[in-house]
Amino acid sequence: MTPEWIAADWGTSNVRFWAIGADGTVLGERTSADGMNSLASSEYDAVLTQSCADWLKKAATVVACGMVGSRQGWVEAPYQTTPCAVCPSRMVTAPTLRSGLTVHVIPGIRQTDPADVMRGEETQIAGFLAQNPGWDGVLCLPGTHTKWAHISANEVISFQTFMTGEMFALLAGQSVLRHSIADSGWDDDAFGDAMSQTLARPEGLAARLFSLRAAQLVHNTDTITLRARLSGLLIGAELAAAKPYWLGRNVALIGADAVSAPYITGLASLGVNAACVDAKEMTLAGIKAAHALLETINQ
Amino acid sequence: MTPEWIAADWGTSNVRFWAIGADGTVLGERTSADGMNSLASSEYDAVLTQSCADWLKKAATVVACGMVGSRQGWVEAPYQTTPCAVCPSRMVTAPTLRSGLTVHVIPGIRQTDPADVMRGEETQIAGFLAQNPGWDGVLCLPGTHTKWAHISANEVISFQTFMTGEMFALLAGQSVLRHSIADSGWDDDAFGDAMSQTLARPEGLAARLFSLRAAQLVHNTDTITLRARLSGLLIGAELAAAKPYWLGRNVALIGADAVSAPYITGLASLGVNAACVDAKEMTLAGIKAAHALLETINQ
Repeated sequence: MTPEWIAADWGTSNVRFWAIGADGTVLGERTSADGMNSLASSEYDAVLTQSCADWLKKAATVVACGMVGSRQGWVEAPYQTTPCAVCPSRMVTAPTLRSGLTVHVIPGIRQTDPADVMRGEETQIAGFLAQNPGWDGVLCLPGTHTKWAHISANEVISFQTFMTGEMFALLAGQSVLRHSIADSGWDDDAFGDAMSQTLARPEGLAARLFSLRAAQLVHNTDTITLRARLSGLLIGAELAAAKPYWLGRNVALIGADAVSAPYITGLASLGVNAACVDAKEMTLAGIKAAHALLETINQ
Repeated sequence: MTPEWIAADWGTSNVRFWAIGADGTVLGERTSADGMNSLASSEYDAVLTQSCADWLKKAATVVACGMVGSRQGWVEAPYQTTPCAVCPSRMVTAPTLRSGLTVHVIPGIRQTDPADVMRGEETQIAGFLAQNPGWDGVLCLPGTHTKWAHISANEVISFQTFMTGEMFALLAGQSVLRHSIADSGWDDDAFGDAMSQTLARPEGLAARLFSLRAAQLVHNTDTITLRARLSGLLIGAELAAAKPYWLGRNVALIGADAVSAPYITGLASLGVNAACVDAKEMTLAGIKAAHALLETINQ
């Protein structure tokens, strides 16, 4: 077990490290809750050297993506601006006390008009493109902040962020609807019906949310049904607004199964059959692509 | 100072009591934070008798509206169902240990399809109608959960609730947008522009929210501007969805100045000049109307 280098997906609430061998094999994987939200910029160095002490005896290079490169992160890696190459040539080096170690941070991508930003998803996109060279179309990356990105000729042409995941969490967990929304469970029909409503009339979203609470009070509607209905209303509204992205395009999803499933269902109902790949795998593939680019530049 | 009876506006987070004299004059007013959220149903009686001990030496009747009549309140006052008379003939009596005291609770109103409920607003509507007999049109009651109610021939024909106020609070205070939204301050132009956007294209709301965060990161947009823009996006979407209510109707607002102002601006931009009356005054007027009805029934 002799890692050549270390890959890191350093996000808002946690971090994942991989030890990578000479041929790109993953030799080990670790996660911790030391995400950006719990760290001052001076603390990243210690988290890395403590978490990966054994790996760092051999490895001298780290390539990291995610919020680690934000202004509140370890070192600011200034955004690339769309349209821009998927695989970044301008990584930024983070300050470290460990001699002989170089930490490269992958920059995020921003868009000027309409204003938008991503950090972390660009690496998943790069991973997808590394595995699917020459792919053209639209990538949907569902999550807390779902991203839709138009990809052409290995560039991110444009993208748009939807707060659907965060809205669901706030409405189901913090708003008056929390009394009527189950913590888990699903109802396909309720999801589909609600999604159809906001897909057809997205302007009705604002009017339909309180109805979920009222449905329980007036009709004693099951809270699992209402959970699926809330998800359907929000995803239907997102799909309606994201129509310029998916309409008539080649669409693929990058996401974990649970968050991707309702998007796959929704897109299928619109006649869009989207392939789905795993987000974690794409992140690692993207960091590997960035590392490979680094080797090319250094040669 | 000899109160004849006591009026109570007993809501989710606080309660307001008024001592009412023989001729309807307000002799005193008190508020406390003993709202439904902090009380078990057995505790309301003690709150009332302690808060109003001096008034209760003379007064033998209390008329209360609001969440005090919900299933989680003092006593459940079953909803009236639309279409229904604005002033309720079926009040419910709450259990009290104090002999000689009768506590009447005003029921809320529910609608079967689409499901909706109100508790407290029906009393403000009754107060408005008591002061404006025979008024026909649409009442808008802005707040955490804004209500739009179609009123005709002294009946609530239909109504619709929008979670706009709560959405603003959650997005500005709890979501990723909190980093970019000022706690206070206003920008008329930003509000108007944003409202026009979602009024014209309400389906774009889902796509525009994250843009507020991105505008600060990409363009360093002022957080006060972004606060007004968030309000504009949400109210524009509400006004678009509430169009069947305000279009071609006589519209009046019942609300506090601060929450009513953006609605007045928005409606004015649509050619609707809505009069605005104070919510607290309408609540008291509505409780007085319910008390008067009680006297009529008792005679």
